[in-house]
Amino acid sequence: MTAAGRLLAVLDAFTPGRSLLTLSEISRRAGLSLTTAHRLAGELVNWGALERDDDGRYRIGLHLLELAALAPRGLELRELAQPFLEDLFHSTRAHVHLAVRDGHEVVYVETLRARGTVTVLSRLGQRWPLHATGTGLALLAHAGREVQEQVLEAPLKRFTHRTITDARELRRVLAEVRRTGVAVAEEQLTLEAVAIAAPIRGAGDEVVSALGLVVHVDECEPRALVPVMTAAARGISRALGAPSAADVRGVVRGR
Amino acid sequence: MTAAGRLLAVLDAFTPGRSLLTLSEISRRAGLSLTTAHRLAGELVNWGALERDDDGRYRIGLHLLELAALAPRGLELRELAQPFLEDLFHSTRAHVHLAVRDGHEVVYVETLRARGTVTVLSRLGQRWPLHATGTGLALLAHAGREVQEQVLEAPLKRFTHRTITDARELRRVLAEVRRTGVAVAEEQLTLEAVAIAAPIRGAGDEVVSALGLVVHVDECEPRALVPVMTAAARGISRALGAPSAADVRGVVRGR
Repeated sequence: MTAAGRLLAVLDAFTPGRSLLTLSEISRRAGLSLTTAHRLAGELVNWGALERDDDGRYRIGLHLLELAALAPRGLELRELAQPFLEDLFHSTRAHVHLAVRDGHEVVYVETLRARGTVTVLSRLGQRWPLHATGTGLALLAHAGREVQEQVLEAPLKRFTHRTITDARELRRVLAEVRRTGVAVAEEQLTLEAVAIAAPIRGAGDEVVSALGLVVHVDECEPRALVPVMTAAARGISRALGAPSAADVRGVVRGR
Repeated sequence: MTAAGRLLAVLDAFTPGRSLLTLSEISRRAGLSLTTAHRLAGELVNWGALERDDDGRYRIGLHLLELAALAPRGLELRELAQPFLEDLFHSTRAHVHLAVRDGHEVVYVETLRARGTVTVLSRLGQRWPLHATGTGLALLAHAGREVQEQVLEAPLKRFTHRTITDARELRRVLAEVRRTGVAVAEEQLTLEAVAIAAPIRGAGDEVVSALGLVVHVDECEPRALVPVMTAAARGISRALGAPSAADVRGVVRGR
């Protein structure tokens, strides 16, 4: 392992279920000697990537949040989309997700959690395979052919008995997403949850993100939420400068 | 510089104004040779901390967001507080801030930006000196004596002609914050902006965070927003398990 690799291994010792670690846990999880783990953890504490709690255990520090906020595809996108997400959240009372594609996975860059509806697994920064979530399907349907073929050729992980694990079926679903402009994922990742999602386009009219809603399967006809969701996705696309979402008045008036 | 230090210097080359960098910009800003910068940037790309755009420039990647989401004082706190922040945002239509103290600075772990009111400088992950913001004053007033004395003894940076830069005046303001439970910062960081803030307490009843609202100085009497803000701060404290914010019915019923 390179020196840089050892440092990054210390950070990777922290995972959603294990966000508070002792030095020996870091050493074991990163595969480093106690001495090396101690030295590197110390450098990361000085830099602000790690902090120590009152018991001397290590946790992820605020300097990483400061850096993460600079990710153009992450928190910067989130900030621009925020007013649209707020309005959508308050008009639907559904879970609202903003996501981007990272390789063969979908990453949530914003999640607004509704109360009193189905429990969802999503949280900020979390990743799932593209085929198992609404936002993932919306992103995959508009990804390059190469990415689509790679996903279709690899095994499709099953999460519930309804998860699409057949490549032919997935291919059909992706074509449907492109035709309708909306992805629907019924109980793909979690039972009782239905997700709908729409693509968001950037300044070059390419799909850069996806907007999704998740509701309980018995709660309402999710398709009834499609108009308000696609309007919000179009609003965010326009804010990003997407030509296909440009202000129509401008065109009519010949501006 | 240690090997770890060189890697971290590459990340620190990215700042709010400079979030998209060429290799030579990284090399110059990090004080590293082109060869070293190229090797380290490559390791960071493989790990996911950096990404390259279509022009080959480097930007902060999504793996940092994934890690930052594990910070207990950051996005984890934000997730728990989210429903309260949403309600506060929609009932006040003011900017809403959730912040924690990091040394002598305040760091925003959530910002909900209102439309049609004063422009604020705050964004997620951003830092300001404690004495110049509402949330900073609320946190400083409840920090340990040692931290307070260090801040009071250091020069207090001026942002506007109204920023408190006199230690005696700051000491008086902090006593007032403790007495009333509310911090008020009028045009301390930005002209035309008034911030009010209240402390949030954790499971040990210690102050762990602060909740703040920012409105335009001409917009409304900010003190009129104090009850709804302190109720939300108390709700978040209760969700964190703070004894002083415990459900009163429980006490009355002798649970």
